[in-house]
Amino acid sequence: MKAMRLEENFGLENIRRVDLPEPEPGPGEALIEIQAVAINPRDRIMMLGGYGRMGGRPPLVPLCDGAGRVAALGPGVEGVAVGDFVCPAYSTTWSHGPPDAEAHRGAHGGPLDGTMRARMTVPARAVLKAPPHLTPAEAASLPCAGVTAWSAVVEQAQVKPGQTVLLQGTGAVSLFALQFAKLAGARTILISSSDEKLERARPLGADHVINYRTDPDWHKTAREITEGVGLDHVVDLGGAETLEKSISAVRSSGSVSLIGVLGGASPALNLGKVVTRNIRLQGVTVGGRDMAARMMAAIAAAGLRPPLHAERFAFEALPQALAALPEGRHFGKVVCDDF
Amino acid sequence: MKAMRLEENFGLENIRRVDLPEPEPGPGEALIEIQAVAINPRDRIMMLGGYGRMGGRPPLVPLCDGAGRVAALGPGVEGVAVGDFVCPAYSTTWSHGPPDAEAHRGAHGGPLDGTMRARMTVPARAVLKAPPHLTPAEAASLPCAGVTAWSAVVEQAQVKPGQTVLLQGTGAVSLFALQFAKLAGARTILISSSDEKLERARPLGADHVINYRTDPDWHKTAREITEGVGLDHVVDLGGAETLEKSISAVRSSGSVSLIGVLGGASPALNLGKVVTRNIRLQGVTVGGRDMAARMMAAIAAAGLRPPLHAERFAFEALPQALAALPEGRHFGKVVCDDF
Amino acid sequence: MKAMRLEENFGLENIRRVDLPEPEPGPGEALIEIQAVAINPRDRIMMLGGYGRMGGRPPLVPLCDGAGRVAALGPGVEGVAVGDFVCPAYSTTWSHGPPDAEAHRGAHGGPLDGTMRARMTVPARAVLKAPPHLTPAEAASLPCAGVTAWSAVVEQAQVKPGQTVLLQGTGAVSLFALQFAKLAGARTILISSSDEKLERARPLGADHVINYRTDPDWHKTAREITEGVGLDHVVDLGGAETLEKSISAVRSSGSVSLIGVLGGASPALNLGKVVTRNIRLQGVTVGGRDMAARMMAAIAAAGLRPPLHAERFAFEALPQALAALPEGRHFGKVVCDDF
Amino acid sequence: MKAMRLEENFGLENIRRVDLPEPEPGPGEALIEIQAVAINPRDRIMMLGGYGRMGGRPPLVPLCDGAGRVAALGPGVEGVAVGDFVCPAYSTTWSHGPPDAEAHRGAHGGPLDGTMRARMTVPARAVLKAPPHLTPAEAASLPCAGVTAWSAVVEQAQVKPGQTVLLQGTGAVSLFALQFAKLAGARTILISSSDEKLERARPLGADHVINYRTDPDWHKTAREITEGVGLDHVVDLGGAETLEKSISAVRSSGSVSLIGVLGGASPALNLGKVVTRNIRLQGVTVGGRDMAARMMAAIAAAGLRPPLHAERFAFEALPQALAALPEGRHFGKVVCDDF
Repeated sequence: MKAMRLEENFGLENIRRVDLPEPEPGPGEALIEIQAVAINPRDRIMMLGGYGRMGGRPPLVPLCDGAGRVAALGPGVEGVAVGDFVCPAYSTTWSHGPPDAEAHRGAHGGPLDGTMRARMTVPARAVLKAPPHLTPAEAASLPCAGVTAWSAVVEQAQVKPGQTVLLQGTGAVSLFALQFAKLAGARTILISSSDEKLERARPLGADHVINYRTDPDWHKTAREITEGVGLDHVVDLGGAETLEKSISAVRSSGSVSLIGVLGGASPALNLGKVVTRNIRLQGVTVGGRDMAARMMAAIAAAGLRPPLHAERFAFEALPQALAALPEGRHFGKVVCDDF
Repeated sequence: MKAMRLEENFGLENIRRVDLPEPEPGPGEALIEIQAVAINPRDRIMMLGGYGRMGGRPPLVPLCDGAGRVAALGPGVEGVAVGDFVCPAYSTTWSHGPPDAEAHRGAHGGPLDGTMRARMTVPARAVLKAPPHLTPAEAASLPCAGVTAWSAVVEQAQVKPGQTVLLQGTGAVSLFALQFAKLAGARTILISSSDEKLERARPLGADHVINYRTDPDWHKTAREITEGVGLDHVVDLGGAETLEKSISAVRSSGSVSLIGVLGGASPALNLGKVVTRNIRLQGVTVGGRDMAARMMAAIAAAGLRPPLHAERFAFEALPQALAALPEGRHFGKVVCDDF
Repeated sequence: MKAMRLEENFGLENIRRVDLPEPEPGPGEALIEIQAVAINPRDRIMMLGGYGRMGGRPPLVPLCDGAGRVAALGPGVEGVAVGDFVCPAYSTTWSHGPPDAEAHRGAHGGPLDGTMRARMTVPARAVLKAPPHLTPAEAASLPCAGVTAWSAVVEQAQVKPGQTVLLQGTGAVSLFALQFAKLAGARTILISSSDEKLERARPLGADHVINYRTDPDWHKTAREITEGVGLDHVVDLGGAETLEKSISAVRSSGSVSLIGVLGGASPALNLGKVVTRNIRLQGVTVGGRDMAARMMAAIAAAGLRPPLHAERFAFEALPQALAALPEGRHFGKVVCDDF
Repeated sequence: MKAMRLEENFGLENIRRVDLPEPEPGPGEALIEIQAVAINPRDRIMMLGGYGRMGGRPPLVPLCDGAGRVAALGPGVEGVAVGDFVCPAYSTTWSHGPPDAEAHRGAHGGPLDGTMRARMTVPARAVLKAPPHLTPAEAASLPCAGVTAWSAVVEQAQVKPGQTVLLQGTGAVSLFALQFAKLAGARTILISSSDEKLERARPLGADHVINYRTDPDWHKTAREITEGVGLDHVVDLGGAETLEKSISAVRSSGSVSLIGVLGGASPALNLGKVVTRNIRLQGVTVGGRDMAARMMAAIAAAGLRPPLHAERFAFEALPQALAALPEGRHFGKVVCDDF
């Protein structure tokens, strides 16, 4: 069975195509035939050894995101059937609740082997039903970035009709958050440095767009859209580059989701503003199986389609795909569905 | 200044066209030029004396719902300007929070004089900005039925993307609840005894429709739509006629909004089911000024349009409009915008 | 190994002392040496066949409540050690969240064999650490009635400092709810038909007591304690006998926990009051493993001690203990710790 | 009527005893005979001109905290009676909800004249009933620091039985937060640089105490108290000096109240930890009238007594009292009740 695998040492140059023994589902396990995978910044950091003791070690099959069909079941499986269109959950040891140490111990693509192989076995309790209207590539894009955005917008900030929400950039988490905020009835504002990407984001639900390159006072422009009241919520993905302005943009008792550290992981915090205006800052990572299942059900019911990057990478081009990620030229999820 | 007014005694036959002195706005008050009014079941009960000591007494100008333009301001008014398109709030003494005794003491259309007159003065704190994309008749339909539905769906049940919500009938509260549930990202099921009305409700956001006349087991049909899991939420408007089935239709830990008593006000409650399945029953009436303002902002941001009954009644035909209400032949709010 | 067991048919007369093979812990299981058990109304109904298909069938070892020491571990157990002072969770298949069909499938004392035996094996994930300051009999009293009261007061009603809470009767759920409401900072009112029991409940945290036999207008007396505002919360245990008064006793937007059906399971519901005053009715049963663990931790941190009925029943006197339960002469949990 | 007042310019040296005309209550106002006042860091900053345009300007009667008796009522007042034991609310323009610009416009002691005078008029809607078991000095200590702590612990963090909460220092907000956390059923940990103050805090409800001077790894010690799980909540008052350790001390999905900036207002924020562990940071200031009323009711029901600094300052010694505040030698609120 073909797979891509990190061999011997960390580093993208050590990812190689290998042949592995055919996996067989044990008690309580499902065998999934992988049809597509998607790539997250996390996967690149993992391959570079950036997570230290929390990450996996070579040999390691990369990637946590994938989608496919259930090909066989081990004994004692309930709730999953052969032929089901599914995704492996991000982690096999995170059913619900906050991310404790145990939650990451069973994460696919590090510490556990990931989705970058023809077939894999997954405990049935960590198998998610994928929305049936999606292609394998679209479904593969959901478990990591989608659940992160869902947690921020729907379960933590609990965005409601009539609220105004600002999203930063056109990375996968931001675009998912845009779609979920719109689905939840909010008015949305998207900022990006690219007019072209902003235009492409409009049909996904961006009511207002701001180019932060040409309008560095985007936080003031955003406040004006709310007639000076301030935003209900900002999904902050820029870290040190954006936090100060995100805090300035929200209303009194508004909230900011802290997700990204793209612009630096140690911003100075303007305590005076946060205190006097009762602002809430909420750290958000990916979520457990139950939360992922709620997101999958919502996407299925609403018929949402996640945007995918136009260029598709071949199975063996995984190192190139991982290397391309930080360049930021993509719009939509980078996937590989040429299995 | 023309007005319709209940004279001497309760009873629709005692509503008469009268000429009243021109009102002048006192300190903190706005003068509103009324352009349209809408009729609620509450108004009919009020005219019949059904609220006893809690209601108003003749002489009484009827109706709590209206919309128009601010024509003048008394001294010391902030936040409202001449020319603003507005609605009087349901009550002048209910700013926020639950409905205490004080909350209803300032209700328009009983105990206080209502909207059925050419001009009225309202304390500025009880003036709501109406969504600018609406006609006066559409805006007039919002304060009572709209806020009741908003409270049930958005603020009490906190309906979220991916949830399934069932609405009962095509009365104004049910249709507003349908629109808000859809706006909040839910999958919706509408039941009615009329196939024709069900078809008219589809474009308002009804994903599934059930005729409860031809399918009296609508609660089972609704459960099937959720693959047997049960609904997240039911907006119950039938009281004794529907409560048992509403409770059967929701999932474990689901909830039911109790709003209507159309089918009887003293249903038998199946405690066994409510207890063992942790079901929540939430009584809901209209809400205070702050909640109404949140609803108005959401309708404005989303561009929602409330449906209006096709037939419009003339100013002097108010008694006929009130009498027509219980016949249930209307679809959408019954309004009078011929001022 | 000794056990009491329901043999052949339902009925307390069919419970007999038997000798069972020594259990051995399988993979992921702990062997618990039972030191005390406690009796719930549920257990009596189970022995009488009252739960139909949802319950267990003979032969069946009764009772869901017990406490003891971990005597041995099967392979692969983490988080539990030999010698730990523990209780089996109510169910082996209910980890968190609402009570779905699956949740009750693994309930001890029906459908699964229960605690009324010298030793039992339990999956490690369903083993609860008992508060170390308690005796085995006290710890055994917690999993069913304690978690029910905890769910009602702490997790559903979220009782806060300064609120006023009314509890009904001196059954186990009511006394636990009294202790939890007091622990959460509330002012408490306890009603009972016995002055003697009311006096015994004072040291458990009853700030006010009302004998509902001599004061049938207890709901009005309770409102007076709040200067006419109404209670924040009532834990209703009387069902048809109390619900109408419970609803009258709470404030606008107050809430009532529905738990008990002692006075009848099909009360008439006064919809008018529930609707106009925005009252919330919340059905409550026992909870899952995670909730039970939170309760155990709170009891340990606060040093709470649950009251036990003075009379202790011998191991073989289980049928007599079950028969005595409905007589209601006890104060505090009925336990058997003579193992 | 005697008063202390800031004359001409900012600076403690410009506070002087003056004689002012007797105030008379206008429509909707109550006249309060002040019996005691309490001092907050806010008052000192105000007298030094530290709030710029947001603060008051001389001439200005200082202080927001006071307590006394209602001496007379203007026309149209409901809900307040002559002789009532009361406190003026922090602000006359903040009834409920988050602190918008309007909320601070009516704050006593700047921009509006404060409590440091024999008698003052206050709109009846901004008059709080004081807990009857308290002395005037104790009651005077509540509106500003008490409400801040209440907001943090009870309304924002919603501390529950069984949770573990850490408080920083023995300033007024920290000691109130300690009492409220204990009242809400939590296990409490107090840190301070003074063993003597820690011992004095034990009877107020400190279950564990840590001297952060001798144990700079107090965050690790605190985690050990929770057996490595981490705290549910930290009330952070040290700002730049403590935030990093506060974040390290809480559990996954735990929360930190941001209130104080004593150790610096621009700490570096460890985004990595906040994000991966889903930590919530919540800015907290004082609250509106409704929140203050809820706190007053809870203190009355529970019989809590706030600690007061042993040394009492005379009416004319206000500048000395304000100057003494930053020295931090006090334990409990600094009050002046020699009126």
